[in-house]
Amino acid sequence: MELNYQTPVVLIIMGSDSDLTIMSEAAESLKSLNIPFKITVASAHRTPQRIQELIEEAEDTDMHVIISGAGAAAHLAGAVAAHTTLPVIGVPLDASPLSGFDALLSTVQMPAGIPVATMAIGKAGAKNAAIFAAQILAIKYPSIREQLKTVKSQMTESVIEKAKKVESLYTIV
Amino acid sequence: MELNYQTPVVLIIMGSDSDLTIMSEAAESLKSLNIPFKITVASAHRTPQRIQELIEEAEDTDMHVIISGAGAAAHLAGAVAAHTTLPVIGVPLDASPLSGFDALLSTVQMPAGIPVATMAIGKAGAKNAAIFAAQILAIKYPSIREQLKTVKSQMTESVIEKAKKVESLYTIV
Amino acid sequence: MELNYQTPVVLIIMGSDSDLTIMSEAAESLKSLNIPFKITVASAHRTPQRIQELIEEAEDTDMHVIISGAGAAAHLAGAVAAHTTLPVIGVPLDASPLSGFDALLSTVQMPAGIPVATMAIGKAGAKNAAIFAAQILAIKYPSIREQLKTVKSQMTESVIEKAKKVESLYTIV
Amino acid sequence: MELNYQTPVVLIIMGSDSDLTIMSEAAESLKSLNIPFKITVASAHRTPQRIQELIEEAEDTDMHVIISGAGAAAHLAGAVAAHTTLPVIGVPLDASPLSGFDALLSTVQMPAGIPVATMAIGKAGAKNAAIFAAQILAIKYPSIREQLKTVKSQMTESVIEKAKKVESLYTIV
Amino acid sequence: MELNYQTPVVLIIMGSDSDLTIMSEAAESLKSLNIPFKITVASAHRTPQRIQELIEEAEDTDMHVIISGAGAAAHLAGAVAAHTTLPVIGVPLDASPLSGFDALLSTVQMPAGIPVATMAIGKAGAKNAAIFAAQILAIKYPSIREQLKTVKSQMTESVIEKAKKVESLYTIV
Amino acid sequence: MELNYQTPVVLIIMGSDSDLTIMSEAAESLKSLNIPFKITVASAHRTPQRIQELIEEAEDTDMHVIISGAGAAAHLAGAVAAHTTLPVIGVPLDASPLSGFDALLSTVQMPAGIPVATMAIGKAGAKNAAIFAAQILAIKYPSIREQLKTVKSQMTESVIEKAKKVESLYTIV
Amino acid sequence: MELNYQTPVVLIIMGSDSDLTIMSEAAESLKSLNIPFKITVASAHRTPQRIQELIEEAEDTDMHVIISGAGAAAHLAGAVAAHTTLPVIGVPLDASPLSGFDALLSTVQMPAGIPVATMAIGKAGAKNAAIFAAQILAIKYPSIREQLKTVKSQMTESVIEKAKKVESLYTIV
Amino acid sequence: MELNYQTPVVLIIMGSDSDLTIMSEAAESLKSLNIPFKITVASAHRTPQRIQELIEEAEDTDMHVIISGAGAAAHLAGAVAAHTTLPVIGVPLDASPLSGFDALLSTVQMPAGIPVATMAIGKAGAKNAAIFAAQILAIKYPSIREQLKTVKSQMTESVIEKAKKVESLYTIV
Repeated sequence: MELNYQTPVVLIIMGSDSDLTIMSEAAESLKSLNIPFKITVASAHRTPQRIQELIEEAEDTDMHVIISGAGAAAHLAGAVAAHTTLPVIGVPLDASPLSGFDALLSTVQMPAGIPVATMAIGKAGAKNAAIFAAQILAIKYPSIREQLKTVKSQMTESVIEKAKKVESLYTIV
Repeated sequence: MELNYQTPVVLIIMGSDSDLTIMSEAAESLKSLNIPFKITVASAHRTPQRIQELIEEAEDTDMHVIISGAGAAAHLAGAVAAHTTLPVIGVPLDASPLSGFDALLSTVQMPAGIPVATMAIGKAGAKNAAIFAAQILAIKYPSIREQLKTVKSQMTESVIEKAKKVESLYTIV
Repeated sequence: MELNYQTPVVLIIMGSDSDLTIMSEAAESLKSLNIPFKITVASAHRTPQRIQELIEEAEDTDMHVIISGAGAAAHLAGAVAAHTTLPVIGVPLDASPLSGFDALLSTVQMPAGIPVATMAIGKAGAKNAAIFAAQILAIKYPSIREQLKTVKSQMTESVIEKAKKVESLYTIV
Repeated sequence: MELNYQTPVVLIIMGSDSDLTIMSEAAESLKSLNIPFKITVASAHRTPQRIQELIEEAEDTDMHVIISGAGAAAHLAGAVAAHTTLPVIGVPLDASPLSGFDALLSTVQMPAGIPVATMAIGKAGAKNAAIFAAQILAIKYPSIREQLKTVKSQMTESVIEKAKKVESLYTIV
Repeated sequence: MELNYQTPVVLIIMGSDSDLTIMSEAAESLKSLNIPFKITVASAHRTPQRIQELIEEAEDTDMHVIISGAGAAAHLAGAVAAHTTLPVIGVPLDASPLSGFDALLSTVQMPAGIPVATMAIGKAGAKNAAIFAAQILAIKYPSIREQLKTVKSQMTESVIEKAKKVESLYTIV
Repeated sequence: MELNYQTPVVLIIMGSDSDLTIMSEAAESLKSLNIPFKITVASAHRTPQRIQELIEEAEDTDMHVIISGAGAAAHLAGAVAAHTTLPVIGVPLDASPLSGFDALLSTVQMPAGIPVATMAIGKAGAKNAAIFAAQILAIKYPSIREQLKTVKSQMTESVIEKAKKVESLYTIV
Repeated sequence: MELNYQTPVVLIIMGSDSDLTIMSEAAESLKSLNIPFKITVASAHRTPQRIQELIEEAEDTDMHVIISGAGAAAHLAGAVAAHTTLPVIGVPLDASPLSGFDALLSTVQMPAGIPVATMAIGKAGAKNAAIFAAQILAIKYPSIREQLKTVKSQMTESVIEKAKKVESLYTIV
Repeated sequence: MELNYQTPVVLIIMGSDSDLTIMSEAAESLKSLNIPFKITVASAHRTPQRIQELIEEAEDTDMHVIISGAGAAAHLAGAVAAHTTLPVIGVPLDASPLSGFDALLSTVQMPAGIPVATMAIGKAGAKNAAIFAAQILAIKYPSIREQLKTVKSQMTESVIEKAKKVESLYTIV
């Protein structure tokens, strides 16, 4: 099956526009994988109604995955998951004095029945949310699997290249 | 102004019926203060719609305070607070391997604009939620203030009584 | 019932004048809601006597709510709550190497009988303390409820506006 | 597209056979959703080779999702994710004196490029891993989406039923 | 200078009579050192007035050291230290789901100016509070120093004795 | 009894000369109280022998209290306490990525028999170590008690002065 | 080079005889590898002198590795490492209300210059201390390397065997 | 036995080239001890194959010790230990918002059978990894033991020198 590059298949929601500096990692990663997405802001606490509307829109337009990034008592991913059976990926953000530790526990410790696929705190997690969304989509769209394999090989090569540079710094005389 | 003892003024919501062993502390404390309440179950994640309905009912029937008890990624109090301007009191419960630590952070670390008045983890918190609700109601119903003062005096006396027993255990010969 | 705008109804106490940078959030929020308040400094450990005097004054002048902000082994809110049946709201401050974690546990883990309504660590908590105080006062003064509803709507609109900006950053070509 | 009920599409790996008491939650949930799976034991540290073999087998037989449960320094999910572009779901287990806290951080804090979709610690997480796997599969097999919606409705109904029981315990006379 | 064995020189205060199972360690240790003490109950939150009275009595009767044991948001030692310049020793107790971690931070993180000498959580801490009180008293009463040296030697001997038993369990054949 | 102002009665040991920026708080506080002290560096791990020598010197020259400040796996205070029955005060320092949390637990969680009087992490703790030393010495030297009472009054006055400044910032018009 | 099976090459020290239930794991593992060892009790705080004597004995009798197990403020391994350049392996034990978390930080966070090779908390750590000691000895005694390879193969086989049992529990009909 | 100074006996692997700022401490320490080493980059997750190759090379060229430094969900040391019976030393790095706490638990909490000798978080740990490697090698190469004793003496002297400077800052007039 072929991906339609005109219609978003991933919805990225962040709890506040100040989260964009981190969540843009997810957007850029999806872009580099040619996966069409919509990115927006919605707060579990300030706009509960809007969350429901966004999910209805996502389901009606046949989106496949939702990525949610939030900090502090990060309820966003859970609030999204409460309203849908689409896979929801949560990114805990470091946005309070507790270094994202509060966001991690608020995102991951979901009760039985309502999973949220939690990623690492911060930038690594935002990027991985995009890659994990792609891994999910690859189940339906085999061409994404090929892209992911290419990205994985490039990562491997990049490490090996860096390894050579580090190795050259210390030599036994 | 006089309290109408036929209509509930406090709504207690717990995330699961298994939370009743702890949250009954709140119910019993309200009962002993003669404050009429409704107690029920609703889950932020399993029944998001029901939460909205309960809040609408609470506002329509002129309830004054909402107490919410939940464990793990305890979003319940926050989800309630998102839909109302009534004061919401949150009780974090010890219902996962993390000893209620996850519930505490999920309940207390609310973003600016949507407060949740967080109590201690577990039984002490459940009881204090009821007393704090009474302290709020006392602003409108002065007779509750008198009751609270009586309870406070009794606590003081009870400590003094226990002190005497402990003092008598060790005497200098 | 109408609020008298000449007499303070909320007392804000902070443990040290260095806490003002954070606790001014509470003051400014009450100000913008037209809720008269008194703000001062008192330390649970350095001025225990003063705390009792402030509470007596608060009770004598018919104040309704006390907000307390403190860091480290933050006993202030608890020390206040020990002397009154007025509702006490505690704001844990990030004022030691432990990122406010010590202040959070010292404020929230109150024993049964003496509740402190604990808010988030730092600025979000200071602001929410003011809003929660307003939610309590709204039980007696209905006009405050209307103000709170307006503030809540504005928050919602503000999120939607920001959402549009973020949405416009990434468009599918 | 129709699911072939004779071939496993989900692989469940646990780090030790003692993890079965928890990970059987994942197995039972998949079973009740009629999703064929293979369940086995492999250790990131004791059998690194076996992990590669299991992944090769999974990819060759066209499995779609891998669930991994492990405790302590829980490297299993990460070690699996290192070898595949299939979506990997990690379940941290409470199997050391640190209450699963070590397993949570070891599972979730993956570096950019290699995501692991982390669930809650313990039983809730094991069950949610199965549901999340189903949510992923539903992208390809629409009938699973219908099943998930049914399960979600049943959860809602079950909460409402329990709510009624709790409500009946306390009545205003 | 000689210790008067008829008048208490140490005051032990615990926050609740349920703390006696732990705090009796302090009492028994003082008893075995022949140091006269008074033991009683007083709560920072339930009986703030009583704390002041106990301290006044302690100062008037020329007591030298105060030991205070409390759990959860353990303000007791700090509340005592706020009212006196006598040395105050705090014992954090494991009396909430957070394993005494809350009591430790509430006791030790005192602000500049008001020290509390904090001991380990639980029984070890209660015993050490007594020994530390004796070490303080030994500055004035040299005979206590001799006793402490004897106790220290006995501890050393006891370890060596146990060492021999353990050594004998494993022998090289 | 009168204090001899020519002979040190307090020994301050820090684990590294880099700790001086914090531990100078203890030195300055003792200085302002006119309590003679010796300050030096010794490491539990790098100079175990030196610790024994310093303690012998302290005991031989009739010092009364030892203050020890160290970071990370802060064994210094415990190592000192192992060799003496003089009261040992420990100051945990924030000298590793773990914010002094490691130093706190390493200092306070001493086994039964060997107490270390632990202060707050960092500057507040260093200052309080000096005040606590003075409180101990005051048992023998009554003039120090008078000084401590004066310092305590000054603290109270200073808070009241600051309170007035803060109060004047917000006035009801 | 051949190992002399009559002379201990590993010294196991535990902080208290009550630690034997855990530390016997280390002893039994060394025994099963035919590595001669001495096991004894010594406390960093109760018997500092004894630690020095044990290390001198260990160095004089040409022992190669020291294993140290202790709980709470676990200074034992660090105290041992302070006196020797032999490799010291530390096992943090779960012996306080803080679940071994205090012992872990006290053991691992050693300052630059004095390493302690820290193992996992509790039984797994005690066993691994023995295996790690064997890995060190294998550098000198090649026959131990062979034994370790055999043990490693047996572990692999044991996992595969258990995997088969688990696999047989769930079969697709 | 004499060390061959032309062939590396220690292999240092770090998870990312950005770890070099910390791990160079290990390299420089080995260099100053004249211990030949190879330093390179390999990621447990991005280059699992490379890890096996590096270990094979290390075993084939008769290296004796492997040092591994990694941050976040730091699986590197464990992944290395899974493939070899050579002693593996793990250095947890502070490379995520959680201050290296995640790396510490991921490195140290290894299951029974596969030890990783864990050092302190960050620079102290990196340096100690080198010293511990030297302590291991000293079992085979006695000249390294002499060097280690010299380094240890120098540390002691350096502390004493610093002590003198600090002592001179505060003198009793």
